[in-house]
Amino acid sequence: MRNILIIGAGKSTAQLIKYLAENAASEDLHLVIADRELENTKRLAKEWACAEAIQLDVANTEARQCLVNNAAIVISMLPARLHIEIARDCLLFKKNLVTASYISEEMAALNKEVTASGLIFMNEIGLDPGIDHMSAMRVIDRIRDQGGKILLFESFCGGLVAPESDDNLWNYKFTWNPRNVVLAGQGGAAEFLQEGTYKYIPYQRLFRRTEFLDVEGYGRFEAYANRNSLKYRSIYGLEDVLTLYRGTMRRVGFSRAWNLFVQLGMTDDSYILQDTEAMSYREFTNLFLPYSPTDSVQLKLRHMLKIDQDDLLWDKLLELNLFDETKKIGLQQATPAQCLQRILEDKWTLDHSDKDMIVMYHKFGYERDGEQKQIDATMVSVGENQTYTAMARTVGLPVGIAALKILNGIITKPGVQLPVSKEVYNPILDELVSYGIVFKEYEVPYLGYNPHHQ
Amino acid sequence: MRNILIIGAGKSTAQLIKYLAENAASEDLHLVIADRELENTKRLAKEWACAEAIQLDVANTEARQCLVNNAAIVISMLPARLHIEIARDCLLFKKNLVTASYISEEMAALNKEVTASGLIFMNEIGLDPGIDHMSAMRVIDRIRDQGGKILLFESFCGGLVAPESDDNLWNYKFTWNPRNVVLAGQGGAAEFLQEGTYKYIPYQRLFRRTEFLDVEGYGRFEAYANRNSLKYRSIYGLEDVLTLYRGTMRRVGFSRAWNLFVQLGMTDDSYILQDTEAMSYREFTNLFLPYSPTDSVQLKLRHMLKIDQDDLLWDKLLELNLFDETKKIGLQQATPAQCLQRILEDKWTLDHSDKDMIVMYHKFGYERDGEQKQIDATMVSVGENQTYTAMARTVGLPVGIAALKILNGIITKPGVQLPVSKEVYNPILDELVSYGIVFKEYEVPYLGYNPHHQ
Repeated sequence: MRNILIIGAGKSTAQLIKYLAENAASEDLHLVIADRELENTKRLAKEWACAEAIQLDVANTEARQCLVNNAAIVISMLPARLHIEIARDCLLFKKNLVTASYISEEMAALNKEVTASGLIFMNEIGLDPGIDHMSAMRVIDRIRDQGGKILLFESFCGGLVAPESDDNLWNYKFTWNPRNVVLAGQGGAAEFLQEGTYKYIPYQRLFRRTEFLDVEGYGRFEAYANRNSLKYRSIYGLEDVLTLYRGTMRRVGFSRAWNLFVQLGMTDDSYILQDTEAMSYREFTNLFLPYSPTDSVQLKLRHMLKIDQDDLLWDKLLELNLFDETKKIGLQQATPAQCLQRILEDKWTLDHSDKDMIVMYHKFGYERDGEQKQIDATMVSVGENQTYTAMARTVGLPVGIAALKILNGIITKPGVQLPVSKEVYNPILDELVSYGIVFKEYEVPYLGYNPHHQ
Repeated sequence: MRNILIIGAGKSTAQLIKYLAENAASEDLHLVIADRELENTKRLAKEWACAEAIQLDVANTEARQCLVNNAAIVISMLPARLHIEIARDCLLFKKNLVTASYISEEMAALNKEVTASGLIFMNEIGLDPGIDHMSAMRVIDRIRDQGGKILLFESFCGGLVAPESDDNLWNYKFTWNPRNVVLAGQGGAAEFLQEGTYKYIPYQRLFRRTEFLDVEGYGRFEAYANRNSLKYRSIYGLEDVLTLYRGTMRRVGFSRAWNLFVQLGMTDDSYILQDTEAMSYREFTNLFLPYSPTDSVQLKLRHMLKIDQDDLLWDKLLELNLFDETKKIGLQQATPAQCLQRILEDKWTLDHSDKDMIVMYHKFGYERDGEQKQIDATMVSVGENQTYTAMARTVGLPVGIAALKILNGIITKPGVQLPVSKEVYNPILDELVSYGIVFKEYEVPYLGYNPHHQ
């Protein structure tokens, strides 16, 4: 029996456990699922004969090291900042490690030691980061192997609500951490390259400079720029690329409406508001509008943000009850962003019957034999239900597949890694196909950066 | 002979030294001016027989303490963060201290010890903070002494160019630290009270929510909100006030044009741009605009910010050469804010013949005997030349006057203080009158917060 230690039983773990459990008999696996909260972990484990639930406080070094020592391989599904102690344990007991998080500086610093020990610490192997790296590098490597030179790489991803559950004016519901959605884009300008020119978008313009993307069978989406696209130059070996852009996908119209919150100051998380517990939604909205003894909150907002009478933007705000006098924020010591999140959760929380959807879109522009060409690649994955969501599937499966491939000696290169080499992405992407995670490729005319999209 | 130790010989020190030197004979004073840069300090000192220049590195404890020990009183004109070591020396050698800076937490923490030693550490006694405190508290105390209750306090201040030197479309030149002007309003939302309602303005709206102010003989100004108005509730004892607002004054139209820089992202100081040394002003502007193979930087900017053909905003941008291909930024490793400052300095640096101007405007709304009333108070001070600027006068004189009043036992209350008590503000404001620093008061109808101004 080979023990797989899974630390952290969060939202994307159900699919990971299901994958490993379904392979347990043929692969001779035993799953140890360790989490701070025992109840939920037990519920996850009890469906599978091969799985065992254990209560673990990761700050407890002795308990943690005992589990690591008994494992054949370790998977950490904890928040990124909690990986490092587990990584050090893995070094100590010579165990391979898999995480879906970005490689932290601390993790990167272990590379020499990990490599010297012949160990594999595979990171960034969920959805984004994860499937984005693998699917992009497969096409980039193929273009290069055929003698092509990459001119343009753009990559977009969005966690959205599935069309069959899409029933609000924003065409959006929270399918992952709502706080991250409210704070998206803050903390620095978006930086990217367009046709060899550096471009910067400040937060206050981010949601007004979107690009449209059409996905076959799913219609039109829009994307706003992610904060730092430039780091992908070195990760993907794209030092000479002219256009490099990464963005977040939403349904068309979301960003223009979201920009209203940005302009009002409702997404600010840097200070605490006064008296938020008994504050009505209307009072919250009025905090960001000029005082007037006579004018309504509605008219002041319309005037300040120049919203016409017949603009659908207005209905989006009404749908969220922003002017309601009876609904209360009910939070103590809250920032504007926390209050806004509270208001959005009324309308954007998934119902039990709702399904989520992941959409990914890559553009690869290249030159071969003096000709400029472009490949667009798209992937859509729709969730089954609230446990086996598209998010859990696209995060949990690549983690599980990678863990098994490492355990079985199919992935062998040691070091602190992310999945950008053929040895890693080929077997994983191939296996993902049988779970419906498939990229469709389209040859399209190379337009360079297309000005009609801006 | 009484030694006055002045540490720091910056821009506002010339006026301070002049004041003390002119009183040296009658008051039996000797001035020791200590600064890191000896040349400039010697130039300042050599005009006055009573003054001596000394080279001092404030990090040199021995040299610093020797000077403090020999002083009758110490004036620190250093940047705020450098006061604390000097304050500790003053405690050690039992010397009184005067600074024009906001009281830091470290400084405030010395209060008990300072009070127990019977010492006076007088801070915030320049212009803003300084003259604002004194002139506001004099009126507030008078209204209260006459049985009035303060309903509204608004206070505005601006460092501007004098009308006779006002020759650009922005009606603005740098009369103090340019960096502070470029970064103004960043680091959190503006918070204030209007008719009992808390109001918050995020940075991206700050320069679009201005208020107009008319000053007799000087025409119309506008003001945008300062970051934190609420702290003045406790400092001025205005716990029950309905409206509390502090703002920065500019000539009308400045803020609307400055907002273009904010919207573009040019005032961001949080990240370093690529290749700024050889970058032209035009290339800098283009960093913040979408890529286009055909459209001009001018048209892209006009379109993005919706600037009409005949809008004066446009001429303000042209005046700054924002679209010039030949002018270079010439800075290494610069942030957008540093590049913008460089561009503005071409046009907004005072000429040798230019004069600056300080404008202050207070509004006091109050109720007495069931009647609502309002007093507006304004002060304008125009500089003589580039040495004896209005800024140096309004900062240096109150510091110098306070130092003499403390030395002569006219101001006696011990502790870490700011000038809000009658004992302090009355003698200082009275003496400032003979230097032309005079507040004119106007009784005006009480409008509460006037919606027509927003």
